Amino acid sequence: MRAVIFNEDLQFVPDHTVPDVPADWARIRVHFAGICQTDLEIMKGYMGFVGILGHEFVGTVESCEDAAWVGKRVVGEINIACGKCDLCDVGLGRHCPERSTLGILNLDGCMADYCILPIANLREVPPEISDERAVFTEPLSAACEILEQLKPERWKRAIVLGDGKLGILCAWVLSTVLSDVSLVGHHIEKLEVAGWRHLKTTRDVNKIEPGADIVVEATGSADGINQAMELCAPRGTIVLKSTVAADGKLNLSSLVINEQTVIGSRCGQFKDGLRMLQSFPDMPIERLITARYPIEKSNAAFERSGRTDALKVLIDMRAQ
Amino acid sequence: MRAVIFNEDLQFVPDHTVPDVPADWARIRVHFAGICQTDLEIMKGYMGFVGILGHEFVGTVESCEDAAWVGKRVVGEINIACGKCDLCDVGLGRHCPERSTLGILNLDGCMADYCILPIANLREVPPEISDERAVFTEPLSAACEILEQLKPERWKRAIVLGDGKLGILCAWVLSTVLSDVSLVGHHIEKLEVAGWRHLKTTRDVNKIEPGADIVVEATGSADGINQAMELCAPRGTIVLKSTVAADGKLNLSSLVINEQTVIGSRCGQFKDGLRMLQSFPDMPIERLITARYPIEKSNAAFERSGRTDALKVLIDMRAQ
Repeated sequence: MRAVIFNEDLQFVPDHTVPDVPADWARIRVHFAGICQTDLEIMKGYMGFVGILGHEFVGTVESCEDAAWVGKRVVGEINIACGKCDLCDVGLGRHCPERSTLGILNLDGCMADYCILPIANLREVPPEISDERAVFTEPLSAACEILEQLKPERWKRAIVLGDGKLGILCAWVLSTVLSDVSLVGHHIEKLEVAGWRHLKTTRDVNKIEPGADIVVEATGSADGINQAMELCAPRGTIVLKSTVAADGKLNLSSLVINEQTVIGSRCGQFKDGLRMLQSFPDMPIERLITARYPIEKSNAAFERSGRTDALKVLIDMRAQ
Repeated sequence: MRAVIFNEDLQFVPDHTVPDVPADWARIRVHFAGICQTDLEIMKGYMGFVGILGHEFVGTVESCEDAAWVGKRVVGEINIACGKCDLCDVGLGRHCPERSTLGILNLDGCMADYCILPIANLREVPPEISDERAVFTEPLSAACEILEQLKPERWKRAIVLGDGKLGILCAWVLSTVLSDVSLVGHHIEKLEVAGWRHLKTTRDVNKIEPGADIVVEATGSADGINQAMELCAPRGTIVLKSTVAADGKLNLSSLVINEQTVIGSRCGQFKDGLRMLQSFPDMPIERLITARYPIEKSNAAFERSGRTDALKVLIDMRAQ
């Protein structure tokens, strides 16, 4: 099968072995895979991953012991937990220390004709959600994780830093529960894409009044938290979304002085992302698609994805 | 009056003007003042403070419009709030953006024969609490702040990093509500001082099992949070107590991956510190006193306080 492999550099492989299907797992024919910021960080050394890249996909189950799944259109939770430890016991399998993670940790990813996942990880995609929207389930669920961690309905005002795809998705998700949400970014064209509902967008952080109850740091920069601390109210909450390979030069003193809370926030639960796609069919997800490339042109796709004006770049496996 | 001033360097001044007493304020004759890590950080540039140092004291009210206060033995809350803003409205005056802070921000401190504070900031010291214990009310209240922010009774296991005075006080306070608390430090003699109740102490961090529900970072080092992230459980809480002038080289990715929460924690409420002193008369506070100096020897006192084996150094104003 065709596959995109990272091993020191990015390689398109036309004849990779199709993976076997373990018991209780399924093999999925991938329709679309999305390139995520994490993939670009992996290429800089993040997680030390080697193998088939990719953890955002939508596809169709092609082979599986349980025949009921075959032919279903699915997305897949990316963490495979041990199912036995204390964290798995309390429903936090996505923090299981023995976990593997699709295309990130000890498991080949989805930038290939086929990928495999445990049946337990699969979520059927409702028919009203297109492939182009469904492929956003993973990052949209990651944005929804904020709602699960924070219960933001209790607060008044949120600021999202970073007009990348994750920042925009976080701003949209917060806009579904809060009336005062601002998105700060550097790129006119991305901020135009981000306009939805009552969301305010700006390139000038000085126009933003500090003292927000919630500040989401999604700049993708190791020192983005510095600005978040400045904009966050005393006793307010900073949600940290950026995972980056580089160290930042940080002084957390103002965090102590202002008794702010920082919450690291990562993957969400796919049920939340799918529910968001169903509940808000007007959320303009498709606008985030910057370009589509056939897998043979994955190097060009990654190059496009790394440019500052890019939002989501999709790899279209259906194109031959 | 005698006073210890910081203005680029530390100066003992034998004849500083005695401060006037504004309406609703009191002038207090200081018995003891404590040297805090924050004072040492101010000397490195923290907060850009210039003036009389010191924010930990016990003393006697000497002059005050309200005669009922005169002659009372008191400690004093260190933040003076505007009383009018949104934060003051909800009882968070210690985060008021217009606040001044005794010996730290826009207000002369207590390392002098006299200091002044609003009457509203004064707390009478119960007779059973000695001066030597009462002077610890401020740092002990700062340790108690963890209980207010975290409700640690819900959790099982806490680790405190740093065997300085604040680290030890945090460990003691946590030991009053949790049965499994470990203190990690570098100094045998400080760890011996710290022994109280069931508190476990160690110099070897490798002997500590990771996965604690709560990790208190009180190392006083800008990069102490790195170790805290390693020892904290996924979805656990790190309490940040260190305020330092220097930047740290930090990578917060594991905070995101493990969805840990970091809570900045600063001053507490004096009622909590005083209650702790009353409820736990066996808490061996006096053991933290490394040395006492008359104010004339404040340079020697600060030098002693800056040495690695020092815990609390007191300036004894009663000595002439």
